Amino acid sequence: MGSPLYRRVRSLLACNLAFRTAGNNNGIKSWLKPAFISKQRLSLPSQSTILARSYCQHTAQKGLIFRQMFEPISSTYTYLLADCETREAVLIDPVLEEVERDAKLVKELGLRLLYAANTHCHADHITGTGLLKKVVPGCRSIISKDSGAKADITIQEGDCIKFGRFHLEARATPGHTDGCMTFVLNDHSLAFTGDALLIRGCGRTDFQQGSATTLYKSVHEKIFTLPEWCIVYPAHDYKGMTMSTVDEERRLNPRLTKSMEEFVIIMSNLNLPRPTQIDTAVPANLVCGIQGD
Amino acid sequence: MGSPLYRRVRSLLACNLAFRTAGNNNGIKSWLKPAFISKQRLSLPSQSTILARSYCQHTAQKGLIFRQMFEPISSTYTYLLADCETREAVLIDPVLEEVERDAKLVKELGLRLLYAANTHCHADHITGTGLLKKVVPGCRSIISKDSGAKADITIQEGDCIKFGRFHLEARATPGHTDGCMTFVLNDHSLAFTGDALLIRGCGRTDFQQGSATTLYKSVHEKIFTLPEWCIVYPAHDYKGMTMSTVDEERRLNPRLTKSMEEFVIIMSNLNLPRPTQIDTAVPANLVCGIQGD
Repeated sequence: MGSPLYRRVRSLLACNLAFRTAGNNNGIKSWLKPAFISKQRLSLPSQSTILARSYCQHTAQKGLIFRQMFEPISSTYTYLLADCETREAVLIDPVLEEVERDAKLVKELGLRLLYAANTHCHADHITGTGLLKKVVPGCRSIISKDSGAKADITIQEGDCIKFGRFHLEARATPGHTDGCMTFVLNDHSLAFTGDALLIRGCGRTDFQQGSATTLYKSVHEKIFTLPEWCIVYPAHDYKGMTMSTVDEERRLNPRLTKSMEEFVIIMSNLNLPRPTQIDTAVPANLVCGIQGD
Repeated sequence: MGSPLYRRVRSLLACNLAFRTAGNNNGIKSWLKPAFISKQRLSLPSQSTILARSYCQHTAQKGLIFRQMFEPISSTYTYLLADCETREAVLIDPVLEEVERDAKLVKELGLRLLYAANTHCHADHITGTGLLKKVVPGCRSIISKDSGAKADITIQEGDCIKFGRFHLEARATPGHTDGCMTFVLNDHSLAFTGDALLIRGCGRTDFQQGSATTLYKSVHEKIFTLPEWCIVYPAHDYKGMTMSTVDEERRLNPRLTKSMEEFVIIMSNLNLPRPTQIDTAVPANLVCGIQGD
């Protein structure tokens, strides 16, 4: 009973009181009787309508095929978006080791993969875009011009990546690297933020042209200005979370809710280890991964 | 260049021809000009309207808050569903080690967690339901009566788990265990299939009252009869996939597209190792996890 798990359980139980007292049970309404709770009347937390609305999962665009995939070594998320009528598709941030899986899914869903796009020149894994070009005929690689990396298509702020009736709007969100892009679905319901904005975090700024002040401005000007219900899909998560919203990150991000000055101090004191794959990943990613030639 | 990764890349490139020839490029329509591809006219795969529609991501119910979380040791998915107006919420298949994360999210989103429900008595991890009851006041545990496990509420086929304006319909889908349940959202847009149906797979049937014939019938009668666009959210995935659809599994599941006789042979020849946590997990899960008393 002295194992790390049990210690964690005990510690969590000790925090129980804090949770109880922090809960807002004012404004009790006792008319609600959920199924299975016929005798015990429960309270409704007093949430303002605005706050309640801000959490709502925005209705996904009709006809959009969407998949999130995970690569466990670098904890990278890859996203597949497609138009269910034209079958045109785009992959965001594919990982070399998972190209086989991703190409299989594209084939199984009867999609035509037009583009494999990177949000930026990654330092923690090798992109799958180069190999995807070989494995999926017709697929073209995309990265930002400012990344300095080679690709079939280099894009800049305001460019659009079109697939069927949908498109991704490219927003320059530098700071983690010079060439970081956030891809926003045309109706602003989904934002693929790469390493600029993570769930309750953000990308590091201590290598690859990183700049905390630049990142702070990017997130506040280009991502936090999106609708509050816009779903945030980052390039990574290390705690098993799969998505967030603009509203949540505006209110709850422990770094980006601070002032710029405080943010710069936080970012300069992270003392993170050097990414294990950086020496192989960055040179490979500067040519959009392994080309298979 | 002889590393496992490079060998895998070479092998994948060798399969390229198969992918090219398998692609359906008949019925070419050349009027489509996606962005960035002004000179190269591309073909549209000939997809029937019905097939195209079957893949479409069904529009999520308005006002539903939905989150998928991942626990990496047992590759378990936990799901949070809530009504954005009443703030009433339910967690499906929480994992003991992630109770802190899940309770934090519930609090951050201003939700009132009514229930922590298990799809079945898990053998590969300890459920978080017992601890959640302690950490989140008012939360009640749910499991099927047929599981033989203790919980605040035991449910049966046809019972409903209500949260705000939504409810989950419980469908008995035994076969992996006697007490397996699939939870289906009231509009049939989402199905939480536990270990009955996994993405391109299914739960094993070689312990805990497992029966391949029972599982086959459960999936075909209770899950494959749902609308083709219903999104399948399983309790696990081991390849980084996060979701599937009823249509996909009906057509592409390598086990469940076979006849029952073939399925039984496949399931009896899996030769899987005994789950490492089974001796601690099952006794704990029979009382809905660690109670913290």
